Amino acid sequence: MKYVRYRDSRGEITYGVLEEDTVCEISGGLFGAREETGRKDDLGSVELLCPCEPSKILAIGWNYRSHLSDRPAPENPEIFVVPVSALLEPEGTIRIPDDAENVHFEGELVMVVGKKTREIQPSEAEEHIFGFTCGNDISERNWQKNDLQWWRAKGCDTFAPLGPAIVTDFNWKEGQIRTRVNGETVQSGRFAELLFDPPAILSYASRYVTLYPGDVIFTGTPGVTRPLQPGDSVEVEIPGIGVLRNRVA
Amino acid sequence: MKYVRYRDSRGEITYGVLEEDTVCEISGGLFGAREETGRKDDLGSVELLCPCEPSKILAIGWNYRSHLSDRPAPENPEIFVVPVSALLEPEGTIRIPDDAENVHFEGELVMVVGKKTREIQPSEAEEHIFGFTCGNDISERNWQKNDLQWWRAKGCDTFAPLGPAIVTDFNWKEGQIRTRVNGETVQSGRFAELLFDPPAILSYASRYVTLYPGDVIFTGTPGVTRPLQPGDSVEVEIPGIGVLRNRVA
Repeated sequence: MKYVRYRDSRGEITYGVLEEDTVCEISGGLFGAREETGRKDDLGSVELLCPCEPSKILAIGWNYRSHLSDRPAPENPEIFVVPVSALLEPEGTIRIPDDAENVHFEGELVMVVGKKTREIQPSEAEEHIFGFTCGNDISERNWQKNDLQWWRAKGCDTFAPLGPAIVTDFNWKEGQIRTRVNGETVQSGRFAELLFDPPAILSYASRYVTLYPGDVIFTGTPGVTRPLQPGDSVEVEIPGIGVLRNRVA
Repeated sequence: MKYVRYRDSRGEITYGVLEEDTVCEISGGLFGAREETGRKDDLGSVELLCPCEPSKILAIGWNYRSHLSDRPAPENPEIFVVPVSALLEPEGTIRIPDDAENVHFEGELVMVVGKKTREIQPSEAEEHIFGFTCGNDISERNWQKNDLQWWRAKGCDTFAPLGPAIVTDFNWKEGQIRTRVNGETVQSGRFAELLFDPPAILSYASRYVTLYPGDVIFTGTPGVTRPLQPGDSVEVEIPGIGVLRNRVA
């Protein structure tokens, strides 16, 4: 199933199932009964929003060998926290702060937590994952290097585009990701290359922090990245999930 | 005014004004009309909760000269993000993860944001601050030193005790803080010693992230700290606000 969150033509914010170009409204939210109400809208007539409402965003650094450069592989997932105020809806506009000079894209697979999760084993983790979506972990490299912590390097408003849909039966083991800037492919990777896979990440994080339904974890970015420019269009595509497309103001 | 959030004797969670040992329920939440409903409870009959419900927690490192050791003073506030799942209610129990070996207290003044805040000047910041409370920025020093980011060093469940009350007319310029462990004073500082004061911090943060009513910013800790032990009682006292008292499991 593909789930989306959207503002419908009445201006109401709701969840729905995406079936080709039709969104079928559901009641009870993403983690409730998920019964179809009967209301249907054309995809083109609704405004897609971030597909869930996380209470927190975790993200992983250095999780592909191709992104490590000459650093050693980490012993544990290298997690960081992104403020939820950084979320940006699919099709939303990335805003670069005035004093930012080196803002990069980072296309990523994002897992969405489906249950309250605390101290679980990797073998139990799959059943705690509701589904997967696309994310772009926008990063100001100078601040990432020079600030004590990554709060603004990764956490400025609009620096966490998320969506367009959550796919519950996504086979990440066979999946891959591509990032395009103005149509040119600038990143690609296969999720089989993840140093820590989604169950390993979720299990490790849950040893320290409780995760709640709707919380999301960005799983890291492959390869090398480069600066975005005003007016650029950046697309993160995961076949089977969709395309997360955002323009830079 | 002193505001608290609490579970009353009926089991309902609500906000109230604290007047000596009586809590007077208010309606409309902390940022609404705040009208007294007429219901009053003895302070001893309610369970105090974190006094607000932040969508994000920011915190500042290295914000007192007495905590810098031999590091230079930072040029800008050194901010980091703490997941909201780390919040711990007043009187709540701090839980130390099994593999943590060096968990320290950090008593701090915490500001509570009262309005949506984006790109404000320091001169405008005071009117965006709803009030102040006490916080304890519990920190695992080994993880703080060795992990890439501070997500678990500062962000484990129960690592952000907050409360007991928010004081709206608190004169932080004249204020001071003391931390006690098992009754012994282990930290003390005056807020006049802050390298970046609350308006400067809020203005700087708001250049990058939008803050919302109820968001909190821990303003940093003075002096030196030391490890907590199981069974310890740790108290953060700010005269004029109150005592945040937590036991270590």
